[in-house]
Amino acid sequence: MSKERLVVAVVGATGAVGREMLKTLEGRDFPAAEVIPFASARSAGSKVPFRDGELTVRELTEDCFTGIDIALFSAGGSTSEKFAPHAAKAGCVVIDNSSAWRMDARCPLVVPEVNPHHLEAHNGIIANPNCSTIQMVVALKPLHDAARIKRVIVSTYQAVSGTGQKAIDELDRQVRQMFNMMEPEVQVYPHRIAFNCLPHIDVFLDNDYTKEEMKMVHETVKIMDDPSVKVTATCVRVPVFYGHSESVNIETEKKLTARDARAILSQAPGVQVYDNPGQKMYPMPIDAAGEDATFVGRIREDETIENGLNLWIVADNIRKGAALNAVQIAEELIDRDLVAVRDTTVFLK
Amino acid sequence: MSKERLVVAVVGATGAVGREMLKTLEGRDFPAAEVIPFASARSAGSKVPFRDGELTVRELTEDCFTGIDIALFSAGGSTSEKFAPHAAKAGCVVIDNSSAWRMDARCPLVVPEVNPHHLEAHNGIIANPNCSTIQMVVALKPLHDAARIKRVIVSTYQAVSGTGQKAIDELDRQVRQMFNMMEPEVQVYPHRIAFNCLPHIDVFLDNDYTKEEMKMVHETVKIMDDPSVKVTATCVRVPVFYGHSESVNIETEKKLTARDARAILSQAPGVQVYDNPGQKMYPMPIDAAGEDATFVGRIREDETIENGLNLWIVADNIRKGAALNAVQIAEELIDRDLVAVRDTTVFLK
Repeated sequence: MSKERLVVAVVGATGAVGREMLKTLEGRDFPAAEVIPFASARSAGSKVPFRDGELTVRELTEDCFTGIDIALFSAGGSTSEKFAPHAAKAGCVVIDNSSAWRMDARCPLVVPEVNPHHLEAHNGIIANPNCSTIQMVVALKPLHDAARIKRVIVSTYQAVSGTGQKAIDELDRQVRQMFNMMEPEVQVYPHRIAFNCLPHIDVFLDNDYTKEEMKMVHETVKIMDDPSVKVTATCVRVPVFYGHSESVNIETEKKLTARDARAILSQAPGVQVYDNPGQKMYPMPIDAAGEDATFVGRIREDETIENGLNLWIVADNIRKGAALNAVQIAEELIDRDLVAVRDTTVFLK
Repeated sequence: MSKERLVVAVVGATGAVGREMLKTLEGRDFPAAEVIPFASARSAGSKVPFRDGELTVRELTEDCFTGIDIALFSAGGSTSEKFAPHAAKAGCVVIDNSSAWRMDARCPLVVPEVNPHHLEAHNGIIANPNCSTIQMVVALKPLHDAARIKRVIVSTYQAVSGTGQKAIDELDRQVRQMFNMMEPEVQVYPHRIAFNCLPHIDVFLDNDYTKEEMKMVHETVKIMDDPSVKVTATCVRVPVFYGHSESVNIETEKKLTARDARAILSQAPGVQVYDNPGQKMYPMPIDAAGEDATFVGRIREDETIENGLNLWIVADNIRKGAALNAVQIAEELIDRDLVAVRDTTVFLK
């Protein structure tokens, strides 16, 4: 298939990630002949900006995928579960940003800098990992290759945009209400997020970890393709609009000095080392917002064990954590000539 | 000495912690015959509220301590370094909230729930630990007693009030400026704090850790009186006004289940277990603000090692992290009949 004839759909085009997907396709000059935005019936007919003009949002239906080569989904887990199989059945390759397919053995879970080769075996549905996982594995994979990571202890500082546009609006509204002596309304999160920290992202599971925390545990293993990497996570929402930060402690088999880690990460794809404490230079969400790179700083040897390192990892959760990673997967599919569903009956007979 | 005849000074009475010290003395009905606020010449003559009236702030001088039994200092390290020895020389017991004396072998570093017996050997200057350390050791000591903690990995989420009133004002001002389409001014911190995370608290040291991070390492060992407890820390400022949060991972010698830890902490002095994920109950800075307790929740077994636990610890950094802890030390001195300086020449001949 010629790259110039690709038809690309964005499903969930009116959401925070969907809009960023459109911007990313445009900004990277993605080789699409046509880009078609889809959303639920409620949003169908509305306009979304694209290139010099606007696109009219179409209604997502089970039979809307005929003639579409790649569909970037960001419309929530239940929409993905319902519609992605119909897309694959129609020969359209789905790159799905929800958690619906991530741990499904039939679906590769891909971060292009880390495991692009997993795409070779795709069956029509490819999963985009969780935002917190993506930025962590981009930074950890090169260290794993150099020294084998045995254990990861991560605490996150996650922006409200990870929840979507309504959470961005909620933080904005609560702050305005408080600064106008009004009671802040709590709608999206279970508690106020303005000037607060919520150690609760996604639902709680039986083991008292949240689903977000266990995503970091399981997705890391699947992407790194190495069950010997043990991860434990505490995920926290903070009153930041864009950009997830992570305090990451790793234990490696081989010793890595902070200097070694800096040298390795300086060469790593998708990573930008930003680590000059003397100049007060370290990654921060306000700097990472709008950027493609995963920023790594505060690289320090952990003196409590033989082979330990502390890192501070920051990325734009909507870009590298979602839209950009999905578009990079699409680009990788094109480069590897994988924009086709070999067997259209894997998900729906 | 009769409790009713105690004269208590608050040095730095116009600052965020100084004002909280006055409130705490009042709220706990501290047995002082007289409370005298001191500050620099600049603030001398101003009034601070106390009980039903006001107190006039006096100028801090080297010879102002005659007749004062206990001085609660919260006026910064250099003021403490200069004036605390004069207080001790005058027979006045100093409880100092700065970092000036914490690692001095002549000074006990005390959290009353953890090591009140260290007060017995005081020489006139007693150090109040760093806010982040206090709340951590209050929660960890009972677990250490039960199962011996070998290693602690902590990531903090620290409120701006830890920096003082001017940082509270800075977060407030930056948010207002941004919501009024103005460029936020950066004065107190090296970068904007509004809607941001700053992985930088206190100054950077030669090992690329911050002084705040190394305080948690060294103070924990001194308070717990056990050099076998290894701590590594990443300290982060978040846009929260009051209340420090900490994501703490511990490795113990003996196995503790989450249930064990919950049971132990439920009985621990100064600790309130707040851990019911099903009910969306977990500690948060907005709930901890204004409270005396150290709140512990999100108690989970860390499956990556044999004997590991994850905890989420939150406390009011101005109360338990500073003012309350200092007043509790004063109360402990009274109970133990230690309101006297045995040798007034230890710090100044």
